[in-house]
Amino acid sequence: MNFVDNSQLRSHNAIDRLTALFSRLPGLGKKSAGRLVYHILETNPSYARALGEELLSFHETIKRCKNCGAFTESDPCIICADPDREPYICVVERAQDVPVIEDSREFQGRFHVLGGVIAPLDGIHPENLSIAELHARVRREEIQEVILAMNPTVEGDTTALYIQKVLKDTGITITRLASGLPVGGDLEYTDRLTLSRSFRGRVRMN
Amino acid sequence: MNFVDNSQLRSHNAIDRLTALFSRLPGLGKKSAGRLVYHILETNPSYARALGEELLSFHETIKRCKNCGAFTESDPCIICADPDREPYICVVERAQDVPVIEDSREFQGRFHVLGGVIAPLDGIHPENLSIAELHARVRREEIQEVILAMNPTVEGDTTALYIQKVLKDTGITITRLASGLPVGGDLEYTDRLTLSRSFRGRVRMN
Repeated sequence: MNFVDNSQLRSHNAIDRLTALFSRLPGLGKKSAGRLVYHILETNPSYARALGEELLSFHETIKRCKNCGAFTESDPCIICADPDREPYICVVERAQDVPVIEDSREFQGRFHVLGGVIAPLDGIHPENLSIAELHARVRREEIQEVILAMNPTVEGDTTALYIQKVLKDTGITITRLASGLPVGGDLEYTDRLTLSRSFRGRVRMN
Repeated sequence: MNFVDNSQLRSHNAIDRLTALFSRLPGLGKKSAGRLVYHILETNPSYARALGEELLSFHETIKRCKNCGAFTESDPCIICADPDREPYICVVERAQDVPVIEDSREFQGRFHVLGGVIAPLDGIHPENLSIAELHARVRREEIQEVILAMNPTVEGDTTALYIQKVLKDTGITITRLASGLPVGGDLEYTDRLTLSRSFRGRVRMN
């Protein structure tokens, strides 16, 4: 038997290329990427075309709103352009947090995307976040309250404290989303920090 | 507070469309599809373009080899066109099984993709598989041995028996891949059927 290099791989070039591209996505290893590729091969070609066309135009279609930083197809985004939105600003870490809060229908105000949280070890300092822009918006848009909705992590809390200091001179109300036991959660499986927060933030019932 | 329908969703149209397309892939729910979409948004646009272009041309680039049924960019495929391949045919269920065996470097012969296994309950009958083509190839390509590499399932075994009968008149050697304990496997966690096979197929050591 005379093994003639791995010529099969050459014939599978497009399959390999697509597998390599898919495996760069988070949570997709080479195996699962390969499974997707073969699934696509066995699916109606219209699917690959639709996905391909969507991806080709994706970055041209989706921009960042210059006012709030959310992902949008129009600039300013529909939320910033809506005069009926209440004069509250909900501050979130990342643009993908905006639809999460919108879908909850809990909040009728505006948004401000920080672009991260202060994390000096990762090289993210206050000046890398859109905090100055937030300060300017509070004045310009006559905001009544800033709701800090960063994740309840050490970095999120640090960033919240920092923003609170920066906004002090505006004199407006600054709040932070409540942190505690998640609905449907189980006390037995709750970590100590969450439990501690739910104690400190306990609500009077009578 | 006056809720003005979910206008945010409209502004996120392309994000929603891409999420919906990704969530049609196996193993990707709406949540994980969304995570991929936001990852792509935050990645260099060249990535989305590369993935999009690959997908647009994918079904035009990848064909089925008319001789063996494997996925290929040229027809006949590089394996079928290679005169140095040994006159053995390895019969597999699906086209994606071919690169798995090629990568193992265990086999220097040709392939034949059945396109499935006999499963009457799923509406797959012998005439839906490329068994007649296999029979023709055995004669035409002067094959010496047919190695049946269908999965060791009830359907795989049924299909192997059926092919064995169909090829009887050719008089060639027909073999089936060994089934038994996987390398690195643990007897304690081996199912009864696999254990039974590994007993029946036990190999003499002296």
